[in-house]
Amino acid sequence: MTAKKKCGITLDFTNALSKVVGHEHGITADDLQKCRKQIETAHATIEKTKDEGKLGFAKLPYTPESEIDEIISIGSEIAQNFSDFVVLGIGGSALGNIALHSALNHPFYNMLKTESRPRLFVLDNVDPELISGALDVLPLEKTFFNVITKSGTTAETMSQYLIFQQMVKEHLGEKAFKRQFLFTTDKEKGVLRKIASKENVRTLTIPDDAGGRFTVMSTVGLLSAAVTGIDIKQLMAGARAMDEQCREKDIYRNPAVMYTSLLYIMDTIKKKPMAVMMPYVQALRDLADWYRQLLAESIGKKLDRQGNNVFVGQTPIKALGATDQHSQVQLYKEGPFDKFITFIGVNQYRESIEIPSAYTDIEQLSYLCGKSLNTLIQAEQKATEVALARSNRPSCTITLDQLNPFTLGALMYMLEYQIAIAGELYNINAFDQPGVEEGKDLTYGMMGRKGYEDKKALVEQAGSQVSEDSKISF
Amino acid sequence: MTAKKKCGITLDFTNALSKVVGHEHGITADDLQKCRKQIETAHATIEKTKDEGKLGFAKLPYTPESEIDEIISIGSEIAQNFSDFVVLGIGGSALGNIALHSALNHPFYNMLKTESRPRLFVLDNVDPELISGALDVLPLEKTFFNVITKSGTTAETMSQYLIFQQMVKEHLGEKAFKRQFLFTTDKEKGVLRKIASKENVRTLTIPDDAGGRFTVMSTVGLLSAAVTGIDIKQLMAGARAMDEQCREKDIYRNPAVMYTSLLYIMDTIKKKPMAVMMPYVQALRDLADWYRQLLAESIGKKLDRQGNNVFVGQTPIKALGATDQHSQVQLYKEGPFDKFITFIGVNQYRESIEIPSAYTDIEQLSYLCGKSLNTLIQAEQKATEVALARSNRPSCTITLDQLNPFTLGALMYMLEYQIAIAGELYNINAFDQPGVEEGKDLTYGMMGRKGYEDKKALVEQAGSQVSEDSKISF
Repeated sequence: MTAKKKCGITLDFTNALSKVVGHEHGITADDLQKCRKQIETAHATIEKTKDEGKLGFAKLPYTPESEIDEIISIGSEIAQNFSDFVVLGIGGSALGNIALHSALNHPFYNMLKTESRPRLFVLDNVDPELISGALDVLPLEKTFFNVITKSGTTAETMSQYLIFQQMVKEHLGEKAFKRQFLFTTDKEKGVLRKIASKENVRTLTIPDDAGGRFTVMSTVGLLSAAVTGIDIKQLMAGARAMDEQCREKDIYRNPAVMYTSLLYIMDTIKKKPMAVMMPYVQALRDLADWYRQLLAESIGKKLDRQGNNVFVGQTPIKALGATDQHSQVQLYKEGPFDKFITFIGVNQYRESIEIPSAYTDIEQLSYLCGKSLNTLIQAEQKATEVALARSNRPSCTITLDQLNPFTLGALMYMLEYQIAIAGELYNINAFDQPGVEEGKDLTYGMMGRKGYEDKKALVEQAGSQVSEDSKISF
Repeated sequence: MTAKKKCGITLDFTNALSKVVGHEHGITADDLQKCRKQIETAHATIEKTKDEGKLGFAKLPYTPESEIDEIISIGSEIAQNFSDFVVLGIGGSALGNIALHSALNHPFYNMLKTESRPRLFVLDNVDPELISGALDVLPLEKTFFNVITKSGTTAETMSQYLIFQQMVKEHLGEKAFKRQFLFTTDKEKGVLRKIASKENVRTLTIPDDAGGRFTVMSTVGLLSAAVTGIDIKQLMAGARAMDEQCREKDIYRNPAVMYTSLLYIMDTIKKKPMAVMMPYVQALRDLADWYRQLLAESIGKKLDRQGNNVFVGQTPIKALGATDQHSQVQLYKEGPFDKFITFIGVNQYRESIEIPSAYTDIEQLSYLCGKSLNTLIQAEQKATEVALARSNRPSCTITLDQLNPFTLGALMYMLEYQIAIAGELYNINAFDQPGVEEGKDLTYGMMGRKGYEDKKALVEQAGSQVSEDSKISF
C-alpha cells in the first residue's frame, strides 16, 4: 500500500460555523447533516462519472508522460529561439495561462533583464489600443504566436490571428509564418485545424472532453507555462495528489467536497449570493480571476436538468489582501450580510523581507521595526478574518504550505472538482454555457455574417419601444 | 453668458427601463417620480455643502493654477533625472494613480523602449514577494520614491518606507535619500510630516478635507501622472466641466444625479445588490477598480446618520469587455436577477486596427475580413447590452467621445459626485470608514504594538469556542 502524497494544503472553516458567526449567518452541524445525503450522492455520482472516464478535466493530470515531455520539448525549443511568446486566446484559453504565469513566475517577469526565457503576453481582448500597444513592444521576427481556440471560430482570437499572420507573412515571409505559429486546437474539426493542414502549421491538440474553462492542465495552459520554465510535471503531480484526496467519502477528509458544501449552504440556506475569493498572496490574484470564470460559467444557469427555470449561481468576486483592506473590507464588515469569503494564504512566502529598525523613537512606527513584511501580511490576514468573524461575517481559509507548482496544481484541481460537485448539488449542467450564444449571434449579425441578418435586425430594433427621454448627452 | 463646456459624455439608460427589461427588473417613470423629491433634496443638500466650501473633493478641480504648475514642474524635474518612479501608497493613495496611468499612458508603458519618461510602479501591497521582485528590477540610484499617506501611520506604506529609505541611505548615502524621496502627507500633523521636518525631505501637502478615496485630483494622484507626462490640467478642466453639469436641478440634464438614482433604485427597489462596472475599453479596467473603492467604502455602512443599524451598500464588481464575455456573461444573463450593469464605451478608440482579408473562402472567417477591431469590439458591446436586455437584465451605458484627460477627469468627477448624492439617499456618512479600524487594531495587537495587548488576546482567543472538527489538512 502506497501512502497518499500529501498536498500541503489546509482548509479551515472555523469562521464559517454558527458558534463563531452566529446562527443566522453560520453553519451548524445540523445544516451539514441536512445536506449530507445530497452531498454524498453528488460525490458518488462524480466519482462514478470519473471512473467511467467521462469527467474530462479529471483525466488531464494523468496525461501520458510522453505528451507532457513533448510540450516541454516544444517549450524549450521556443524558449531558445524567441524573445517573446504571445498567446492569442480568450476566456478558458487565456485565464489558466495567466494564472499559472503570475503564480509561479517572477512578479515583474517581463521586465527582468536576467530572465533568459521569452517574455509572455496573453492578449485576451480585441481592444485596438491593446493590440496596437503590443505591436509597439513586440519584435516581430523574434516573436512566437500560440493561437488557442478549439473551434477556430472564436471571433476575438481569429481576428487577432488574421492580423498577426498577415503581418508575419508580409514582413518576414511564408517560411517565418510556419516557424513562428503554433495552433492549439481540435484534433480534427474546425477552421484552425483546416488552416493548419493546408498551410502546414505546427499544432497541439485540445482534448475532446474538457470544456474551455477546465483545460488549464492540457495543451491549452501548459505550453506557455513550459516556455516560461514552469515545472509542469510538478503541477500535474499536485493535481493527481488532490485527485486521490477527492476520492475520500468522508466529507471531513475531502476538502473539495467540504468546500463546495460550505459554498452551497452559504448560497442556498444562508442567503449569501456572493463568493469572495481573497488571496493574501499577490501572486494568486489571477488565480482568483481564473476561478471567477470557473464558478460563474459553470454554475450560473437558467435551467436545471429537468428544464425548469431556476436562475442559480453565486457571483464570484475577486479581491486581494492586504490591498483591498483599504478598499473593500469596509463593505464586507459593515454592509449587507450577503457574502461568504474565502481567504487564501501561505505558511511560507518564497521571499522574506525584514523591516529595518529606524525611527525607533516614534511609537507609531517602532512596533514595525525588526519585524518582517511576512509577519505583517500574515498578521493582517488573521486580523481581517477575526474582525469579519466578530461582525458575524462568515469566511473560510485555505492555506498552502508554500506556493509552488505542486501545491498550485493541487489547489486548481480541488477548485475544478469542487465545481463539478456543485453542478450536482444545484442540479444543473456545470459543463455548458448556453447563455453566451445569443451575444455571439447578435455580434455576427452586426458584423454582417451571412445567415445572421435577422439578428442584425434584432439589435437595430432594440430599445425602439422606448418613447421617453432615456439618454443624456453632456 | 459663457456657454458650458461640453464634457463629451453620454449616459444612456434605455436598457434600465421597464419597457425594455420588464416591470420587475426595470425602472418606470413612476419609480423615478416616487424618488424625485428625495433625489432633489439630496442634490440640493450636496450643492449647498459644496457652495459652503465643505465638499472636499469638489474643491480639488479648482486648485489654484500655481499649485498645479508646481506639481508639473516637480514631475518634469523627476522625469529628467530618474529612470523609475515608485509610489508607496495603498487604497486611496494608489488606486487613483493606477487608474490615471492605465487610462492615459501606453498599455505597455513600462516596457516601451521609446518612452523617455520614468517607468511607474505603484507598490500597493506588502507581500514580500512583490517587494523583493520590485528590488530586482529597480536601479536603486535612479529610482525616485513618492511616499503617500496622510497620517504617516499606514502600516503597509510605512513598512515599505522603512525598507526603501534604509536601502537608499545605506547604499547611496544621506544626500541621495533627500534627493530621491518626496512625501505626500498632511500639512502639519502626523509621523511623515515630522520625519520630513527632521530630515529635510521634500513634501507635497494632502488637502485637509478630502478623504483618501476622493483625492485623485490632488497631490496624491497628480504627481505620478505629471511624472509620466499626463496632461493634468486637462484632467482638471474636465472635472470642472462636469462640476458645472452637476449643478443642473433637472435630473434629465444631470448625469451624476440620474446615474446615482438608477443605482439607488436598482439596489433598494429592484433588489439588485450588485453593481457591475464593465468597460469595453482595456485602458479603463483600473478605473473600475478605483470606483470599486469609492462605492464600497463610501456606501457600505452599518449605521445611518441617526445611529440605526442599516447594513447598506451595493457591492461593486469589476468586469471587462470583451474579455469577460468569455467568463462572466453566462452568469449575468442566466443567473439570479441581482445585478445592474454599467457598460462604459467610447465612440472612438485612440488606435484603429484593420482585420486583413485572408482565408476569404472560409465562411466562418470571411465576415471579419476587411472590418476593424474597432468595429468588432463595439459590435460585441452592443450585442452584449442587447442580449442581456432581452433576458430582462437591466443596464446602462456611459459613452465617452474619446478617452483623454479631459473626458476622464469629467467621468471621475461624475462618479465622485454620484457617490456624494448616494450618501444622502442612503442617509449615511459617505466620507468615513469606521469598519476598517478593528482590523487595524487587531493587526497592531499581533505585531506587538504597545497599548494593543487586549487586541492580541482577542485574536488568540478567536474560534476557541469551537470544539468540533473545523480544519482539514491534506
